[in-house]
Amino acid sequence: MQLNLLVVAGDGIGPEVTREAIAVMQTVMNAGGHSLAVTEKRIGGIAIDTDGTPLPQDTLEAALASDAVFLGAVGGTKWNALPPNTRPEAGLLQLRAALEGFANLRPAFSIAELASNSPLKLDIVSGADILFVRELLGGLYFGAPREWNKHTGEAWNTMRYTRDEIIRVARIAFELAQKRNKKLTSVDKANVLEVSQLWRATVTEVAKDYPDVTLEHQLVDSMAMLIMTSPRNYDVVLTENLFGDILSDESAVITGSLGMLPSATIGGKVNLYEPIHGSAPDIAGKSIANPLGAILTGALVLRHSAGLEAEAAAIETAVRKVLEAGYRTTDLARGNTTDFKVLSTTEIGAKVRETV
Amino acid sequence: MQLNLLVVAGDGIGPEVTREAIAVMQTVMNAGGHSLAVTEKRIGGIAIDTDGTPLPQDTLEAALASDAVFLGAVGGTKWNALPPNTRPEAGLLQLRAALEGFANLRPAFSIAELASNSPLKLDIVSGADILFVRELLGGLYFGAPREWNKHTGEAWNTMRYTRDEIIRVARIAFELAQKRNKKLTSVDKANVLEVSQLWRATVTEVAKDYPDVTLEHQLVDSMAMLIMTSPRNYDVVLTENLFGDILSDESAVITGSLGMLPSATIGGKVNLYEPIHGSAPDIAGKSIANPLGAILTGALVLRHSAGLEAEAAAIETAVRKVLEAGYRTTDLARGNTTDFKVLSTTEIGAKVRETV
Ligand SMILES: CC(C)[C@H](C(=O)O)[C@@H](O)C(=O)O
Ligand SMILES: CC(C)[C@H](C(=O)O)[C@@H](O)C(=O)O
Repeated sequence: MQLNLLVVAGDGIGPEVTREAIAVMQTVMNAGGHSLAVTEKRIGGIAIDTDGTPLPQDTLEAALASDAVFLGAVGGTKWNALPPNTRPEAGLLQLRAALEGFANLRPAFSIAELASNSPLKLDIVSGADILFVRELLGGLYFGAPREWNKHTGEAWNTMRYTRDEIIRVARIAFELAQKRNKKLTSVDKANVLEVSQLWRATVTEVAKDYPDVTLEHQLVDSMAMLIMTSPRNYDVVLTENLFGDILSDESAVITGSLGMLPSATIGGKVNLYEPIHGSAPDIAGKSIANPLGAILTGALVLRHSAGLEAEAAAIETAVRKVLEAGYRTTDLARGNTTDFKVLSTTEIGAKVRETV
Repeated sequence: MQLNLLVVAGDGIGPEVTREAIAVMQTVMNAGGHSLAVTEKRIGGIAIDTDGTPLPQDTLEAALASDAVFLGAVGGTKWNALPPNTRPEAGLLQLRAALEGFANLRPAFSIAELASNSPLKLDIVSGADILFVRELLGGLYFGAPREWNKHTGEAWNTMRYTRDEIIRVARIAFELAQKRNKKLTSVDKANVLEVSQLWRATVTEVAKDYPDVTLEHQLVDSMAMLIMTSPRNYDVVLTENLFGDILSDESAVITGSLGMLPSATIGGKVNLYEPIHGSAPDIAGKSIANPLGAILTGALVLRHSAGLEAEAAAIETAVRKVLEAGYRTTDLARGNTTDFKVLSTTEIGAKVRETV
């Protein structure tokens, strides 16, 4: 098969890590007689600087014409003073909206080789394997009205959901739970927010169609604690947009590094794939960024957009083998050069390609 | 001095833990020649059942007429089906609004005797001492419009702040930072939300009046991770209402138990004091609840509403001594009856009174 992939590498370490991910995907696909056709476009800060907008029209058109979109990262201190609607992040949010993918899948898993990197104790994290299903097109991110009124000195955003928006993302979460350990935890703040009461009522209703899945509800404040004290208790975790943003970043401590985690956004016209780490401008251009999250994101592209399950699994296995062999990026080695061989971004990418 | 304290013990374990806290305060105050005059009123679920409303008028009047209000906990599964505006929690939110305290101080500290209870590694938590300053009267909790429209199947809440609301809570946070380690971390989601952009701009402006305090801004998603990986990096953490709710519960893992943490809400007409744990209906009435968070909340009453610093410190020292002596409640012992003497709610309360 041929997969037409739009690559929007973006800012900071985005281009460096994306390059390695694409190279790994290409190696695996070619070995299986498939081909990956890559188109590159601008998004985020680099697009603001070059085109005057964080999501140029030709990027948007190329995205909608592609089989899948791979994003590196957007943002950086350089553009921090801009208002929300013209910042690098606005380009990403406009792209998410245009592609219409509403279910953002974010795994947070313990990797045996890296478990000692977690601030959590080994007996707490080992074996943990959570899949966040974060609603990606609603809530405070997109709700209107929204404004910062500089005359009155007042500002507001709107957390808004419709029943249908909740039903469709809940269905995806229940279906994923059916294929996993059949437990779904839905997160809300139903003791205070009307929108969370709608959320809880709707998820409870959808649950009737999935009698084999155990549903529990947790308040977002409790969940922020529980996921640290007993991460193994959770299987699929369903959240609205901002709660998922917060809890999935928090849960990166289960893996021990944000740099290891992939994400896939499904359910819309074209799937969008992004490592969950940011643009990390402080380490950009030094070839020390960890490309493994981007490489694992490449595995998700193959699984969800190309139907190449064996190839996806091969990438995931290769990443584990590289870690087992003692190779680490700077962030993963944490100064321990006795036990580990510290590699640059390009070197560890090459190791994965050799191993796969 | 005489302190007129309104006690609203509320639901679940609220009455049990409050009883111990009041007894400890009484012991300490009497020993110093002071007196504590206690009035008790209903709030939350018990008030719904008895008076048909979560905040009866005479509770509200007594609160406004008191020197300080001590709340146990509100809520329980029994009232979970009620809509937000008539639930037990609505009574608490109405009380917070009526008392006008906008700065909710929530410490999260590592206690050497309990450090092994934390899911975080010892070298990560030991020495951590964070003070959250959570804005308590704004944001999604109180913002209008808010509605669950059952006909259209749509629901919304409003996250709203004014400059003045941010300035007054920021000033309290900066002043507290001046008395501590002179570092303030302000949390927002300024890369997406207009209300967070107002938050960040306003806090930056207020910072000019506190040149001795180092200000940094963190996005709420990053902060949820950073506070787990490097809790010792933080001193005073300033947040809007919901972000503070989430991050302060999460940070209870630094202490190792929600049951240990006090809070004080200041800045309004009458200060409000609450342990941060909830009503825990599953363990209510069994005399196994941990009253130490409530007892430490009593210390905050003496410090912030009675000007009795020595007495407040005496309570805090007594709690540590009781832990040092190996006494634990069930939640703190975690089944380890070899190293610890497990006491009931009333027994550990008595130990603190004997020790103080
Ligand atoms: C960059 C930012 C807009 C984005 C978000 O908040 O969704 C990021 O934090 C993420 O989690 O993908
Ligand atoms: C009970 C609930 C309304 C409350 C809140 O969300 O403020 C609680 O979680 C807290 O943190 O004090």
